[in-house]
Amino acid sequence: MPVLVLLRHGQAAWNLDDRFAGWWDVDLTPQGVAEAVAAGALLEKKGFEFDFCFASVQTRAIRTLNLALEVMQQDWLPIEKNWHLNERHYGALTGLTKAEATLKHGNDRMQTWLRSFDIAPPPLADPELDLARDRRYAGVPLPDAECLSDTTDRVIRYWNARIAPELRADKNVLVSAHGNSVGALVRHLSNLTPSEIAALGVPAGEPIVFELDEDLTPIHRYSLSQEC
Amino acid sequence: MPVLVLLRHGQAAWNLDDRFAGWWDVDLTPQGVAEAVAAGALLEKKGFEFDFCFASVQTRAIRTLNLALEVMQQDWLPIEKNWHLNERHYGALTGLTKAEATLKHGNDRMQTWLRSFDIAPPPLADPELDLARDRRYAGVPLPDAECLSDTTDRVIRYWNARIAPELRADKNVLVSAHGNSVGALVRHLSNLTPSEIAALGVPAGEPIVFELDEDLTPIHRYSLSQEC
Repeated sequence: MPVLVLLRHGQAAWNLDDRFAGWWDVDLTPQGVAEAVAAGALLEKKGFEFDFCFASVQTRAIRTLNLALEVMQQDWLPIEKNWHLNERHYGALTGLTKAEATLKHGNDRMQTWLRSFDIAPPPLADPELDLARDRRYAGVPLPDAECLSDTTDRVIRYWNARIAPELRADKNVLVSAHGNSVGALVRHLSNLTPSEIAALGVPAGEPIVFELDEDLTPIHRYSLSQEC
Repeated sequence: MPVLVLLRHGQAAWNLDDRFAGWWDVDLTPQGVAEAVAAGALLEKKGFEFDFCFASVQTRAIRTLNLALEVMQQDWLPIEKNWHLNERHYGALTGLTKAEATLKHGNDRMQTWLRSFDIAPPPLADPELDLARDRRYAGVPLPDAECLSDTTDRVIRYWNARIAPELRADKNVLVSAHGNSVGALVRHLSNLTPSEIAALGVPAGEPIVFELDEDLTPIHRYSLSQEC
């Protein structure tokens, strides 16, 4: 029976002051590195053996995966990196702290953009944060803002196309991604509402384990934390 | 016109006392980590932009690649890891230092095994060093010893099947591998004899750059070193 483990990247630079990063490529902080290593150590201690790994194309998720695999001595595993697992694209909020964004756009609109499922923030217009020149997005239909439903839809498309087939072939799979892309997968697998997910939380560096049956229905879901 | 860069992994544990590692999975030393980072910094400084990466399935080559890509901010690149790029399998010499092996087998036989193209050392018989239980080699036709020609043949088969097609599609390719697998590629591309290769040397952490024409004939070959 296949096992799926979802890993949210460790603390990254803009997490420190609650700054919206989205698709902007910020790196892990020293604490984020430590969290990634700790996640790997937990998985190692529990004896997880993976067959295939997935990551977004964002440095913070890739480094988290590389560091965890290194600790587990499983860095020989194949890794598929794909933009469908990226964080939600926050549009015009990108680069702003939550406080700056609230000051600029007002609390009501901020709540709508962050809590609703189908209303996106205004498009990203800051040329400094334009990703069109970034080689990793050549040929990718670059969004300029996403509502939560946009993010969820692309994550689930990728799940169906690439991740689920590996699990159906009885491979154990490790996915390293972001708050909203991991959240979309948890929601999809567990039939939780967005508010239940928010309550559940997707803490950095605490692997979420799904034991699945052959139809990929979860039999058991639990988080690995330092206390385990 | 495609560019191919070959990178030999940084110093690894058993390199320190001249101990044959071959397929045994020893990790980088702190100096090896520094060499990998320095190689990445050199490639970054020279403005190399890659499209595809290859590595063996051995930790020392994978970590070297990951560290170099991290410095270059190109860790989003696809990496294909394959055993065909592994180091030469040293058979019964594995785990012995050069001095121990010479004492045990005599200088003449050691010279033959190390210098000839088609005579392999005796097969690996130490159960402590048996790789059959290593998951990464599930389904792989595990050798128990290789002559240099065995190593070269499998490297060139992989070159033809996987690396050359990427270059023909005008992709810039970075390969992270080992003394003998990198040597096999240099020899294949440059029409050098093994003794010319030995004279050329494949120093750790000094990327070897091939600028190729569309038939993958080298137009220019040079090594990047700290003095560049």
